[in-house]
Amino acid sequence: MRNDVPFAVWSRERQQRIEGVLAAALPPPGAPAATLAGAMRHAVLGAGKRLRPLLAYAASEINGADPACVDSRAAAVELIHAYSLVHDDLPCMDDDTLRRGKPTCHVAFGEATALLAGDALQSLAFAVLAADPAPTSAEACRILAEAAGCAGMAGGQQLDLEATGAALDLASLELLHRMKTGALIAAAIRLGSLCGRPLEAAEASALDAYARAAGLAFQVVDDVLDAEGSDASLGKTAGKDAARNKATFVTLAGLAPAKRRAMALRDEARDSLAPLGGAATRLAELADWIVLRTK
Amino acid sequence: MRNDVPFAVWSRERQQRIEGVLAAALPPPGAPAATLAGAMRHAVLGAGKRLRPLLAYAASEINGADPACVDSRAAAVELIHAYSLVHDDLPCMDDDTLRRGKPTCHVAFGEATALLAGDALQSLAFAVLAADPAPTSAEACRILAEAAGCAGMAGGQQLDLEATGAALDLASLELLHRMKTGALIAAAIRLGSLCGRPLEAAEASALDAYARAAGLAFQVVDDVLDAEGSDASLGKTAGKDAARNKATFVTLAGLAPAKRRAMALRDEARDSLAPLGGAATRLAELADWIVLRTK
Repeated sequence: MRNDVPFAVWSRERQQRIEGVLAAALPPPGAPAATLAGAMRHAVLGAGKRLRPLLAYAASEINGADPACVDSRAAAVELIHAYSLVHDDLPCMDDDTLRRGKPTCHVAFGEATALLAGDALQSLAFAVLAADPAPTSAEACRILAEAAGCAGMAGGQQLDLEATGAALDLASLELLHRMKTGALIAAAIRLGSLCGRPLEAAEASALDAYARAAGLAFQVVDDVLDAEGSDASLGKTAGKDAARNKATFVTLAGLAPAKRRAMALRDEARDSLAPLGGAATRLAELADWIVLRTK
Repeated sequence: MRNDVPFAVWSRERQQRIEGVLAAALPPPGAPAATLAGAMRHAVLGAGKRLRPLLAYAASEINGADPACVDSRAAAVELIHAYSLVHDDLPCMDDDTLRRGKPTCHVAFGEATALLAGDALQSLAFAVLAADPAPTSAEACRILAEAAGCAGMAGGQQLDLEATGAALDLASLELLHRMKTGALIAAAIRLGSLCGRPLEAAEASALDAYARAAGLAFQVVDDVLDAEGSDASLGKTAGKDAARNKATFVTLAGLAPAKRRAMALRDEARDSLAPLGGAATRLAELADWIVLRTK
């Protein structure tokens, strides 16, 4: 625990670290199927908040894992996240042209290659996880696969598709987002904590409660930023929820209540960490970062 | 070993068995995100030769594994295969409307849901593998993930995209197909044989040689069937290679040489099995089935 290091330094160190892990895990630019390798690298490297890796590193501090052990899990979660962005941006989904300040994958590489890049990024996530010699690797694969699948992220995307233009209440919107973004955020935290000694039951439930609140806070803030931000500040297209008549926390509750909700969820996330003491400092700081971010 | 059971009975028993395993592994029709669950079930159940599961079951006979142990691996490989068909059929890829005698997934469920169904099927493959308590589950995940990714199936698809309308020689075509279909066929065989006692080196290399020859034979026969078959006989659109000016073993070598090549590869596959004795009977029969099939 080096809690004397400022959060900005701690997070920057780990963002740089995960960038290296991801670059090494991705197929090299000259691989067979070089165009596909290039599309995968385009989709993953050089930008991104790396929130999910940071959550994995932060969670791994609870039970004293060495950061090196967390690298493959943090990278795997980020690869799943990156694949989901590539597929979300495709013309048949959100049809978006800007992502992380760059042209989206299908704009840069064509639709078919972007489809394959997303597919291959998902495969790579499991290859990276499974190649780790830790005895919990299979368990890590199971957790990540379930978070990514029909009962998690992909299922949430489906509900999101069905929600566009439909009347939705706040409870349905929350379920949608708990699946679409919450499941992968929770998986990042669980995979990080799977690297150290087994968690006590109270620790595990504290982490689960944190993950639920922080995951939902992330999405509420996303909705606020989409309503308030600009393309340039976000690095992606702003205002698209309203343009698509999409139910969000902002459209359902209003801007000010959505902001209050985000702060309340931040407090809930921080309060959940009480049983974990000082080892959870980074997680607490990440809860702040999630609601105070501007992109 | 029950080699006295005719191949037709052996294979039918296992096709029925894997159907049950797949049906149980897929999200139930009433799952959250029910439309996505329905699209996944549409894409997987009720048809399909189940060649890859049969190869896994046959390979598992080499080193005396119980078929029950092979179920999750056979199912996982088939789920990856099914996801790849859903994505291949999308408008931005082959834009196909007929698969396994039914409307393709995007025709039945829309493009966005089909995209998500393929994604969720890939996740499910790893969830199924990783949930198996066998000590080799992480290794199985690694083998399958590498076979599916940029250096395997997805990379082969990318080469296939680039080959349409391009001048291709037979060696490049073979590399393409070793990645696009061969890698997953080889993975099916390796995953099946990973269920029993560790293989001797000679056994492992015999299986690898078999996988290479049988995988390529499968693709040559696919090209022959596309050139000679009808929609009704194939359960998918026939004649599409020629329509797309796509390099195939038939267009590069001619129909009769392609057929001779398929038979030679069948012989090569069978000859590879010599060190394995009677335990490889089902693999030998599958090599016959691959080249003699009519769809």
